[in-house]
Amino acid sequence: MQHDFPLTLHHVLDRMRTLNADAEVVTLRTAEGTRTRATFAEVAARVDLLAGALQVRGIGEGDRVGTFAWNSQEHIELYLAIPCIGSVLHTLNIRLFPEQLAYVANHARDRVIFVDDSLVPILEKVAPLLETVELFVVIGDGPTGALEPVVRYDDLLAEATPVQAYPQIDERAAAALCYTSGTTGNPKGVLYSHRSTLLHSMAAGLADTFGVNRSDRILPIVPQFHANAWGLIYAAGLFGASLIQPGRFLQAEPLVALIESEKVTFAAAVPTIWMDILNHLDAHPDADVSSIRLAPCGGAAVPPALMKALEERHGVEILHAWGMTETSPLGVVARPPADAVGDARWSAKSSQGRPVPLVELRIVDEEGVVQPWDGVAAGEMQVRGPWIASGYYLNDESADRFDQGWLRTGDVASVDPQGYVRISDRSKDIIKSGGEWVSSVELENELMAHDAVREAAVIAIPDERYTERPLACVVLHEGRAATVNELRDHLVGRVAKWWIPESFAFVAEVPKTSVGKFDKKVLRQQLTDGELSVQRYDTAAQQVSL
Amino acid sequence: MQHDFPLTLHHVLDRMRTLNADAEVVTLRTAEGTRTRATFAEVAARVDLLAGALQVRGIGEGDRVGTFAWNSQEHIELYLAIPCIGSVLHTLNIRLFPEQLAYVANHARDRVIFVDDSLVPILEKVAPLLETVELFVVIGDGPTGALEPVVRYDDLLAEATPVQAYPQIDERAAAALCYTSGTTGNPKGVLYSHRSTLLHSMAAGLADTFGVNRSDRILPIVPQFHANAWGLIYAAGLFGASLIQPGRFLQAEPLVALIESEKVTFAAAVPTIWMDILNHLDAHPDADVSSIRLAPCGGAAVPPALMKALEERHGVEILHAWGMTETSPLGVVARPPADAVGDARWSAKSSQGRPVPLVELRIVDEEGVVQPWDGVAAGEMQVRGPWIASGYYLNDESADRFDQGWLRTGDVASVDPQGYVRISDRSKDIIKSGGEWVSSVELENELMAHDAVREAAVIAIPDERYTERPLACVVLHEGRAATVNELRDHLVGRVAKWWIPESFAFVAEVPKTSVGKFDKKVLRQQLTDGELSVQRYDTAAQQVSL
Repeated sequence: MQHDFPLTLHHVLDRMRTLNADAEVVTLRTAEGTRTRATFAEVAARVDLLAGALQVRGIGEGDRVGTFAWNSQEHIELYLAIPCIGSVLHTLNIRLFPEQLAYVANHARDRVIFVDDSLVPILEKVAPLLETVELFVVIGDGPTGALEPVVRYDDLLAEATPVQAYPQIDERAAAALCYTSGTTGNPKGVLYSHRSTLLHSMAAGLADTFGVNRSDRILPIVPQFHANAWGLIYAAGLFGASLIQPGRFLQAEPLVALIESEKVTFAAAVPTIWMDILNHLDAHPDADVSSIRLAPCGGAAVPPALMKALEERHGVEILHAWGMTETSPLGVVARPPADAVGDARWSAKSSQGRPVPLVELRIVDEEGVVQPWDGVAAGEMQVRGPWIASGYYLNDESADRFDQGWLRTGDVASVDPQGYVRISDRSKDIIKSGGEWVSSVELENELMAHDAVREAAVIAIPDERYTERPLACVVLHEGRAATVNELRDHLVGRVAKWWIPESFAFVAEVPKTSVGKFDKKVLRQQLTDGELSVQRYDTAAQQVSL
Repeated sequence: MQHDFPLTLHHVLDRMRTLNADAEVVTLRTAEGTRTRATFAEVAARVDLLAGALQVRGIGEGDRVGTFAWNSQEHIELYLAIPCIGSVLHTLNIRLFPEQLAYVANHARDRVIFVDDSLVPILEKVAPLLETVELFVVIGDGPTGALEPVVRYDDLLAEATPVQAYPQIDERAAAALCYTSGTTGNPKGVLYSHRSTLLHSMAAGLADTFGVNRSDRILPIVPQFHANAWGLIYAAGLFGASLIQPGRFLQAEPLVALIESEKVTFAAAVPTIWMDILNHLDAHPDADVSSIRLAPCGGAAVPPALMKALEERHGVEILHAWGMTETSPLGVVARPPADAVGDARWSAKSSQGRPVPLVELRIVDEEGVVQPWDGVAAGEMQVRGPWIASGYYLNDESADRFDQGWLRTGDVASVDPQGYVRISDRSKDIIKSGGEWVSSVELENELMAHDAVREAAVIAIPDERYTERPLACVVLHEGRAATVNELRDHLVGRVAKWWIPESFAFVAEVPKTSVGKFDKKVLRQQLTDGELSVQRYDTAAQQVSL
């Protein structure tokens, strides 16, 4: 029989210390481009100090330790030290509303919170509400504000002696905790185990997913407080890829400068960021981002027009992927078949993708019947696997999100015979017109393919005859104009004729959730409250005039 | 918490049935090139039938089922059906000596043996010695000989009803069993669990190892009775790579024809086979093997000259890898750094490689002290990990092969700071001259780099002054000649001066073990028995004459 080798994050730390000692962590520190560098061997030695410092303060197995920080070398050290002493890394989302932030820190019972000095002003406002925090540790030398008791990260390490021995940990013990901020109710915690995290890291190295490897230089633009930065920190440690940490500088200009100067091969971000980068590249034809071999993009559906523009104009290949905090997050990845060209390739790349190895997927209709993979039948996408949540942390109210081990994603999708998943909607955003589904996501993508359109969000508007019809809420690019007629003409031939909206609302911006996704709940409320200025195209009149 | 998703081979079968339904299995059936084809979906349906047929015959959890077969579609079906009903796939090595074969089948207590019709003549001789076999199943329509009771594979499937439901299996349950045929004592069984096998399959898909992916067309020249064909069958099922099965046609001509016509991208074999393929390609300049993206080679150290010749003359990139039956077998893989060129690249490629993710490695000297990774210090290589054996199947005599979870490989190696392992010898083949180790492997490689040398095996010869000195046993290419002086001159500058052997024996062939490795035990015996004709170069006289 095989060695009873526990699948724990000690293995990642061990490889950083030995095999991958030469890989490096680069952190952007100032807007002027100042950065710090450390080898994995140096980082591992600091992890030992940090682990020692935490243990001396009585932090141990099962204790939750919060981080409130941008992507940095220190945040990597926290990613390793906390789980490796048996504690639970709780990445706090810095964009939560104050009451949500207090709720999650209290719900998790965080004993310590590590915070970037630049984020102290946000955290200190919430600090009085925190019930379990015994210590704040400030990263950087900026003011520590009203935080109390407080110690500086550098002092903590300077005074520490390295951990003598890491505890043996069961592979199913908790390693990390991340709360999802839904648009309703309190955030819900997803607990990752050592096993789930290590297996998920393995998946990131597969040739058919991200193919993370030793020659990669990874820029995780996705923050470490979002689903473990898509697993890239641990994958880099495991495979020996270098990490380029952007800190708080998530604007296109510093990101592109970082890509150029650090020869980044792999950069991962949500569509909004890629949109900004595209605009920047279009405006700066001298920028050279040719070092990028792959640019994973997820968190929201990627408009195909964005993908094509980045690839055709700047040689940046976007890899569309789908996941959620609940899925660690790697769920499906849109690698096209190697021999696909032209439209076939773009069709595959525009899908959400195929289930990653060790992830099982099914679609289930409203009656609970599992649907075939014929590219037509639609239903709720459900997934399960070793890194897919089957429950929330200390939360019994959300049992309906799970069905016998399957996570109900809330996404409505079809799957084609090759296993490419296409999400047509969030189930709660579904538009049912005359008994048939209209895909808001597809309408949005096609509208955003129009030159003048910056953003488009489609919601249901009540309709006497069809019960519901789509309403397109459109944000135009600055200085650009488009009429309802033009947008409708643009959609002809791109979507089913009966999907084309009659109702449009030109808005200044689409409301976003705290994690930057379209918040259609707010749009629907604005519609109900009469706050949207809806323009209707009169189909009957038009038909007559034609 | 995550779903308690068991890491079992059901997942592989499930992906073959659904996501990877379109991949195919091609089997070469005749010397004339006739082949059969089936999609993974068709193979999965036949697996269901085979599983049903076995269950009906009372074969179930924990039962051992033997296979005595070349690589074929049927052997793939057996690889899946047997473990998925909870039984244990026992791949019998067709090259074992009859008494070894009977020993392993009896030791494993095989209840059924599946056998290729072409191999019936071998098995029927052993059949009377088999104590537990209740049924023989013959694959193909050739004579079933004296095997009794016997049924044909096709009839078994024709009469079967598909399995209703596969049993739930604990991930640590046994999936497969493979015996290692050492050069001494009885073969020892290595039991693979579902967990170890699935994790091992994941490793084969990593960009830094084999990078097996959906666009691959894999030719496993390595037989399925050797360490699960290096895990390629399950990896192909998991990732959706097609499998091109060569049957019993392992000569260079049919293999090259298969590579050409099936556009093979990935072919894995031991060095001897690659040597044959090289000779064939050299003799047939029109052969086109450009579809190959990677050619893993292991089972024995690969002579660098062979690697260079295949790459420089025929564009076939050999990937050197090291493993054993005890390591499933993926242990270390010699991917050079992406930016290495010239000598640096060949140096990395000629090493055994770096430990695969989830494999831990150390080197330990004769006093039990763990040695540094400085490229100089040598010691026994020891490994552990989720697919590394920590004991043999029902065997207490070999406990000394394991040390607190570490497998003692019996290989002497050094590790450089980048983690590249270089094996200098089998510990039992060590030559200690004047208190210092001489690497027989390095001497062999350098000798085989000489144009006239086909094979070289170096063993110790007693020496009055130095205790031991190396003796080079050399096989020349047909029609080629080389003198002791020429070979010694050839070694100057390639190895340490004091390593250069004074003693040479020109032999017709190097004795091989049943699995094709140099059998130095036999050579040593021949030396002891005075059967080797040793030519000595008189260094003293030569020194005078210079």
